[in-house]
Amino acid sequence: MRVLDAFAIELPSWGFANTGTRFGKFIQAGAATTTAEKLADAGEVHRVTGCCPSVAVHVLWDFPNGAAAVDTVKADAARNGVAIGAINPNVFQDQCYKHGSLGNPDPEVRRAALSHILDSIEIQRRTGSRDLSLWFADGTNFPGSGSVRARKNWFREGLAAVHAALSGDQRMLVEYKPFEPAFYATDIADWGMSYILSKSVGSRAKVLVDTGHHYQAQNIEQIVAWLLDEDMLGGFHFNDRRYADDDLTLGSIDPYQVFRIFHEICYFTWEKGQAPDIAYMVDQSHNLKNKIEEMIQTALTAQELFLKAALVDHPALAEHQKKTNLIDAEECLKRAFFADVQPVLVEWRKSHGLPADPMAAFRESGYLSRVEKERAERNRQSVASYA
Amino acid sequence: MRVLDAFAIELPSWGFANTGTRFGKFIQAGAATTTAEKLADAGEVHRVTGCCPSVAVHVLWDFPNGAAAVDTVKADAARNGVAIGAINPNVFQDQCYKHGSLGNPDPEVRRAALSHILDSIEIQRRTGSRDLSLWFADGTNFPGSGSVRARKNWFREGLAAVHAALSGDQRMLVEYKPFEPAFYATDIADWGMSYILSKSVGSRAKVLVDTGHHYQAQNIEQIVAWLLDEDMLGGFHFNDRRYADDDLTLGSIDPYQVFRIFHEICYFTWEKGQAPDIAYMVDQSHNLKNKIEEMIQTALTAQELFLKAALVDHPALAEHQKKTNLIDAEECLKRAFFADVQPVLVEWRKSHGLPADPMAAFRESGYLSRVEKERAERNRQSVASYA
Amino acid sequence: MRVLDAFAIELPSWGFANTGTRFGKFIQAGAATTTAEKLADAGEVHRVTGCCPSVAVHVLWDFPNGAAAVDTVKADAARNGVAIGAINPNVFQDQCYKHGSLGNPDPEVRRAALSHILDSIEIQRRTGSRDLSLWFADGTNFPGSGSVRARKNWFREGLAAVHAALSGDQRMLVEYKPFEPAFYATDIADWGMSYILSKSVGSRAKVLVDTGHHYQAQNIEQIVAWLLDEDMLGGFHFNDRRYADDDLTLGSIDPYQVFRIFHEICYFTWEKGQAPDIAYMVDQSHNLKNKIEEMIQTALTAQELFLKAALVDHPALAEHQKKTNLIDAEECLKRAFFADVQPVLVEWRKSHGLPADPMAAFRESGYLSRVEKERAERNRQSVASYA
Amino acid sequence: MRVLDAFAIELPSWGFANTGTRFGKFIQAGAATTTAEKLADAGEVHRVTGCCPSVAVHVLWDFPNGAAAVDTVKADAARNGVAIGAINPNVFQDQCYKHGSLGNPDPEVRRAALSHILDSIEIQRRTGSRDLSLWFADGTNFPGSGSVRARKNWFREGLAAVHAALSGDQRMLVEYKPFEPAFYATDIADWGMSYILSKSVGSRAKVLVDTGHHYQAQNIEQIVAWLLDEDMLGGFHFNDRRYADDDLTLGSIDPYQVFRIFHEICYFTWEKGQAPDIAYMVDQSHNLKNKIEEMIQTALTAQELFLKAALVDHPALAEHQKKTNLIDAEECLKRAFFADVQPVLVEWRKSHGLPADPMAAFRESGYLSRVEKERAERNRQSVASYA
Repeated sequence: MRVLDAFAIELPSWGFANTGTRFGKFIQAGAATTTAEKLADAGEVHRVTGCCPSVAVHVLWDFPNGAAAVDTVKADAARNGVAIGAINPNVFQDQCYKHGSLGNPDPEVRRAALSHILDSIEIQRRTGSRDLSLWFADGTNFPGSGSVRARKNWFREGLAAVHAALSGDQRMLVEYKPFEPAFYATDIADWGMSYILSKSVGSRAKVLVDTGHHYQAQNIEQIVAWLLDEDMLGGFHFNDRRYADDDLTLGSIDPYQVFRIFHEICYFTWEKGQAPDIAYMVDQSHNLKNKIEEMIQTALTAQELFLKAALVDHPALAEHQKKTNLIDAEECLKRAFFADVQPVLVEWRKSHGLPADPMAAFRESGYLSRVEKERAERNRQSVASYA
Repeated sequence: MRVLDAFAIELPSWGFANTGTRFGKFIQAGAATTTAEKLADAGEVHRVTGCCPSVAVHVLWDFPNGAAAVDTVKADAARNGVAIGAINPNVFQDQCYKHGSLGNPDPEVRRAALSHILDSIEIQRRTGSRDLSLWFADGTNFPGSGSVRARKNWFREGLAAVHAALSGDQRMLVEYKPFEPAFYATDIADWGMSYILSKSVGSRAKVLVDTGHHYQAQNIEQIVAWLLDEDMLGGFHFNDRRYADDDLTLGSIDPYQVFRIFHEICYFTWEKGQAPDIAYMVDQSHNLKNKIEEMIQTALTAQELFLKAALVDHPALAEHQKKTNLIDAEECLKRAFFADVQPVLVEWRKSHGLPADPMAAFRESGYLSRVEKERAERNRQSVASYA
Repeated sequence: MRVLDAFAIELPSWGFANTGTRFGKFIQAGAATTTAEKLADAGEVHRVTGCCPSVAVHVLWDFPNGAAAVDTVKADAARNGVAIGAINPNVFQDQCYKHGSLGNPDPEVRRAALSHILDSIEIQRRTGSRDLSLWFADGTNFPGSGSVRARKNWFREGLAAVHAALSGDQRMLVEYKPFEPAFYATDIADWGMSYILSKSVGSRAKVLVDTGHHYQAQNIEQIVAWLLDEDMLGGFHFNDRRYADDDLTLGSIDPYQVFRIFHEICYFTWEKGQAPDIAYMVDQSHNLKNKIEEMIQTALTAQELFLKAALVDHPALAEHQKKTNLIDAEECLKRAFFADVQPVLVEWRKSHGLPADPMAAFRESGYLSRVEKERAERNRQSVASYA
Repeated sequence: MRVLDAFAIELPSWGFANTGTRFGKFIQAGAATTTAEKLADAGEVHRVTGCCPSVAVHVLWDFPNGAAAVDTVKADAARNGVAIGAINPNVFQDQCYKHGSLGNPDPEVRRAALSHILDSIEIQRRTGSRDLSLWFADGTNFPGSGSVRARKNWFREGLAAVHAALSGDQRMLVEYKPFEPAFYATDIADWGMSYILSKSVGSRAKVLVDTGHHYQAQNIEQIVAWLLDEDMLGGFHFNDRRYADDDLTLGSIDPYQVFRIFHEICYFTWEKGQAPDIAYMVDQSHNLKNKIEEMIQTALTAQELFLKAALVDHPALAEHQKKTNLIDAEECLKRAFFADVQPVLVEWRKSHGLPADPMAAFRESGYLSRVEKERAERNRQSVASYA
């Protein structure tokens, strides 16, 4: 039960808005368009699950006019029972970022990107958020388009300037991604690149692992264990995928992998006697399922798989690993993975005044039909075309 | 030289419009927005390269009001020295296609999709186009979302109805794609599925190979050779990729693979004494390079690599293959691939009244700066956001 | 419980012998070297699990002198409580197969391969085995090495001759594999190629799906559903993998995928009111774990995951799929996957006089230490070097 | 021409021996079995190509009795006109390494592995070789088999001890590999892990890039550029692949990728005014082609692609990159890649008294038929079986 008390997962404000693929967006009548709506939806998820107390925000979409809106946004959050979490700058959407942001050969664009990030840190300071979450779409699409080394060094410079602007307990999390939207070379393509850059700019910089940002067959839990051992793991963006960065519901494709990631964390915690300081965040694109329901499903899945990971018999596992009892060691994991944890979860919910079945509670609440009525008109207008 | 006379590659009208990734579009001042503009741009590419005499059109974007526009579009094409090529229905963008088109569990949606395709065949009849080019975004994003077999059979029914509506020399080309925008299971995911469906509906149905629609490391040229041998290869959508369906410039990432695809076709032609009846089409997303220039680059690359493939010493290769002289057989291919064919290409251009350096000729023509001036305002308004 | 009575999985005789990677074999003292030993080990697995009543044999290794040994082998099997299952010819190990077997440009080698397969059919006839299981290592390592179409047609010829030699209820199962040991193009590389060849030679030929023989991210359960719908699924070679054809324990890497494969079969069975006629076989390389224990673990995993798949609420799932209730449909699968089936399994075992915990029973039996003593010396001599 | 004078590529002694896949070895009559034979073959390759002056050796196979053989081996090398290059310990083949070497939970095995490596350093000292080339097969095959972090730290300890034993200008090169023979988690799986370990043990440790040891679609040249920028690139093991670590002839599958790797090196050299200090080595498995001929083909390919990379117009490229002239920048690379460099190569050969066509010269020399006669009998005995 203490494991469940300690496990919280942050929701992304943009996960309640209409998103899609390059071929179009399928618009949901109840999708949120304002930050207030996003926070209300997030609050609803937290109300029924009890494990999503904070919301990551996106500067461009949630603070289009900058830090001035902080008080309003904080109040909206508080009213919905949640707090503002990680701050996400956006240096990929504006037309000036066509050839990159901090990695752009044009110093003017690099300055513009840095300036936006520094503004984001000011928002971070005012919201009291601990983490600045940095994803860069920078990269090149064709061999020869850019100098790999020059772009690397522009990134080091830019990130150093970002680091210098942090204070208090603020951290910066540096995300990596092998491809999309850059298809030949992404400037921060893998955990090694994120590690080197983070290490070089200072101790507040840590690596952010998005579970969808890996090569096929890459062992994510091994990377997690290495980063834990190096004290360089800052947090996660959770989602699932089959091929590319599909941004599907966590655990929908490979739940055993999610369990194994959590296992590495729980195993580390058991060994060190203390949990590592990691931000757990959701980052998914809810294109087909209802957004709020998918978020509830995600939170419940994360909680359940984390609990299962905590149930691994660590002393037995350690002993079997020492003796290379391969089958027995493996069965330690499989037994925990397939353990029936529903009773524990239900009891925990009861003890916290939460509904035993959060999804059913949400469906019965009438929230969805209410917001669908309120928001339908605005959503109808947001259709976009591929070409 | 005769090889060059026989090789033509079709341009896609949508390749001149602003496209992008799900994270946004980088807008080009000179991008085409009307069909007339697209045809003008395509005409310009053909004017300087001499190998792009036709333009594939997209019903939703080029014929938003259906067959009524055919005469205008044909006239526009003719004025620009090109013809109308393959007709591409669109059954993925409308909101009703959220859960699929011909594979949708809802019979109303299946009917709507079929109706749109039948309308497209009417356009095809009036444009005199030979090929109906069918790509379906249908699929499911999560395990359990749909019945694989039910969806397969709905597709068979729908495609049979499409086939029944064809006449004269019309063909239908059935494209496959392993993922995106469906991330768990695409209804027509690979060449085997496209083959089975095509085979089951009738002799006018052939497989369309998009070079970007394969699993990593899959041997595309082997599939091409199998389809040739089965008389089931209808045509190509050409582009290049590194990871997923990146829609990069043909030959920009792996030119040797493009060469080997062409080699299988030329080798087949040499053996049979006759070229197979295949539609060569470009399908790329020109997000960063100038659209018209990238199209010229693509046409020239296709032409050059096809010429190199035609230069393989086929009798020697056949003999080495028979004797399993592995190194000698391989060198037949590598020698042709690295052969300097510029002189032949320049001579061919001269003999056809084409500029020796098509890209330079286009740049000197002033066409781009003219259309950038004309089209800039409209393009400025087309920015879209991810969330 | 009836589901469990109907589910049986065949063990491979070669799974009890020392195998390894190209870098070497790690020798187990208790590994089987003779066919009698392999059958004894298989019998032991069946004795404790009750779901492995037959053993696939490998002609080259189990019948080095051909059909003459059939009576002895059958008697050995019977003595150990198992039957002889699928017959596996070997046309890849002999030096003559360097450039292929049925796809070899040399007609002499093609004849030799065919002759070996026909001999295998004679063994099949005498053992009373239903299935001839065909895997071909044929392919090429370099572009240009061979003619794709010529090799395809040699395969069609050869397989047609094989088909013509079958009689009674005999079937031939044609396996596909994308790579290894051929690294440029495998002659039967994917399910589409296997389908086309099987279809072309006659109704006794079916496709064999080895779960490790797919491209990364390929949706195996979708292929299974298509083959079921086409009545072309002959059987499985089960194992798990992370990267290539790793031949790991079934369900050790992605148990949810195995569950989904079984789900497609159970869903088909529910719809048709009858189970499809499929051979379930194990094909793994037990390099590190103890071979017999890994086989027990595999059999138990297969049985458990099949039972879970049978527990899916099919009517509810069908209804949710019809209405595209994505989350509810998905939860049908996840609920069954995570259901605690141990009580059912234990009860089934009791009702069949089997040990409640088969692995524990095997470990307590002393079988392993006995055979390790008996076989240690012979195994010590079998070390091989990479170079 | 100076570029060619400076480019040398090291041959591996094991590349002349019979190797294969786990399914067997196809034995070549002329394959080398003794170190003397391997050096003779390597000498022959250098005699006709002029760019392979050194030979990497493998301690287990070339120095089965340790440092005592150094004088003989050096003399053999000298007699054949080559020098001894990198020293490769082997800590994967012995039975004790079943669960790893430096990453083994058993301290006795870790000691044994370290001891073998220290012996190798003594050999390195006596041969005067600069580089100790370290590849570890260590890893685990199943989730739970081992502690990722414990194994990482055992590696750090072991490598630190290795580093401490180096002296003079000796270096240690740490290779990474994502999978095979470990299929769940390789202890040093990617360049990031190799970088971290190397960095942590000292300045003599550098990363070794084997071109076949990457995830599919991973951008190798980007990694090379990062390592160059970090001064952490020690050398290469060259080969080509389509799927896994296929160990095919360099440039046989994707020559443009090899060119781009060389391009990053030449671009770095141009910028810094000095070539980086990198060991170029071949590491291939010559299973089907004649070993010596494939080595000649490899050396010539490497030389030719390096020359092409040196021909890139660096000032123009830098200018286009600065201005993000994407097409012009890309064409700088493509123009150099497709440039006809045969005349330059022939001239260089003439000026160094080398045959204009090295492969033809080798074939005419009669060397192959002579060694085939001499070695045939011994090779006939080396056949191994998969199971």
